[in-house]
Amino acid sequence: MPQTDAIDRDTHISTLAIVGPGLIGGSIAAALRVKGRVKQILGVGRNQASLAKALELGLIDKVVSVEEAATQADVILLATPVGATQALLQQMLPYLRDDTIITDAGSTKADVAKVAQEVLGLKAKNFVPGHPIAGSEATGPTAARADLYEGRVAILTPLEVNSEVVKETVTQLWRSCGARVLLMGAETHDQVLASVSHVPHFLSSVFMWQVASASDSDLRLAVAGSGFRDFTRIAAGSPEVWRDIFLSNRDAVLHELREVRMAFERAEQALHEADGPALEEFLERAALARRLWASRSGLV
Amino acid sequence: MPQTDAIDRDTHISTLAIVGPGLIGGSIAAALRVKGRVKQILGVGRNQASLAKALELGLIDKVVSVEEAATQADVILLATPVGATQALLQQMLPYLRDDTIITDAGSTKADVAKVAQEVLGLKAKNFVPGHPIAGSEATGPTAARADLYEGRVAILTPLEVNSEVVKETVTQLWRSCGARVLLMGAETHDQVLASVSHVPHFLSSVFMWQVASASDSDLRLAVAGSGFRDFTRIAAGSPEVWRDIFLSNRDAVLHELREVRMAFERAEQALHEADGPALEEFLERAALARRLWASRSGLV
Repeated sequence: MPQTDAIDRDTHISTLAIVGPGLIGGSIAAALRVKGRVKQILGVGRNQASLAKALELGLIDKVVSVEEAATQADVILLATPVGATQALLQQMLPYLRDDTIITDAGSTKADVAKVAQEVLGLKAKNFVPGHPIAGSEATGPTAARADLYEGRVAILTPLEVNSEVVKETVTQLWRSCGARVLLMGAETHDQVLASVSHVPHFLSSVFMWQVASASDSDLRLAVAGSGFRDFTRIAAGSPEVWRDIFLSNRDAVLHELREVRMAFERAEQALHEADGPALEEFLERAALARRLWASRSGLV
Repeated sequence: MPQTDAIDRDTHISTLAIVGPGLIGGSIAAALRVKGRVKQILGVGRNQASLAKALELGLIDKVVSVEEAATQADVILLATPVGATQALLQQMLPYLRDDTIITDAGSTKADVAKVAQEVLGLKAKNFVPGHPIAGSEATGPTAARADLYEGRVAILTPLEVNSEVVKETVTQLWRSCGARVLLMGAETHDQVLASVSHVPHFLSSVFMWQVASASDSDLRLAVAGSGFRDFTRIAAGSPEVWRDIFLSNRDAVLHELREVRMAFERAEQALHEADGPALEEFLERAALARRLWASRSGLV
């Protein structure tokens, strides 16, 4: 079997193709290179300047077309906005070998699973949807770091048709990057991420938009401090990527936003009534939960 | 004049009293000590363990009562939750000399100015309301740092009755800590801070409360990443301090919350309608504003 030659037990990948070697894809490339887990890395993308940079930084060995990547790679990683997945898979399909493994790093999973099954048909058995919980407001290959996934969680939401060896290969790929792999269903992933990732981005962006739109925004921004800095950091993220995330995970995000709005209105009502004990109880619960999370998560 | 002996032109303060030598007050003590701007620092507070710690760390030279501080100090800094200001000033008033300068570091200013004028009467001429825009989710004297105010903004909202020499003394105190001093009216301060400090704390706490209250909060918190970490960092702040801030600045905060809610609902509607261009335009504006702020603020 070609697969056992190309991808041995320690997950030495002979040829890896990364579609979109920016922060996410470039960091995987950097990590696998540092660990000596890959022989050759092909880079695919639309942005020529970005591909040239990835080449210059040694994240990829050469730039190829989507078709060449599909033909030559043993493992293909899609590290593009989730909205691009369908068109990419359609373009690749005619060229994929029967054992070419594909995975992605997109922020939503139910839509990716659906698209993969619809487009790839029987070859969906080799597609394992994934999502590393790591990132940065910086983008592009210059932001890539070999330690981006060190100690972080990588979620995989395998399809029912995935074989053990395919799942194991993708699991080992993430472990090689230093990540802890969690397996869950795609719907669970999307609900949970709507809460802890998509809603914060929504709120941070809404707030930043509102401040920037105020008539005295210059004065406001002149006195903004470190709390503002931390709270709004995620709002600097790629508008294109986040538009796709919100649209892909619309139902779960809208559900969570309704829950958040109810909490918002309760707290606002307590403030309106100048109800000190209710306000303090609410703030206390939030503060204790946040402190407990900090002590457990290892993220400081 | 005793004032010129006790506080010379380079703002060498003979005796400084800090009420509440925790993160904020302790960092002022540390900065003034490092710069050699103060001879003796008296510490006042309710929490004996915290005062003992401040003494042990060398932030204060001795622990005294409110009355002793009012009698002995040349400059008194109130670094307590704003809700404590009124009672403290009432307790101090009979003991204050005619030239004892008082300032505070409270997060709201219109209420502090009002309380100072009501309680201190003619002696309000020596009270300069202030607010350093610096902090941390850590609290207490162990979190104090000599460089906390370095390069940060300290806002002063002088009373009409303040003399130039009193304003200058407090201005120099903050400059000695490395801060850039901005003067503005108390109402302007409160409106601006409602926007860039109080609303983010409100939203971060509402969100943290909602996540912690969900039936699957454990799973949510297990996959929360660095975006969640930054967005919720401020929610760990002192519930008592923030209750007082919200109550003190209630009208301005409620006004801003209404504006934020309108922006929230607009963005939510765009998502509900799956309006990609509207979503992207909104995200783009937020991202550009945040990136511009980062490049100008010097806070990274």
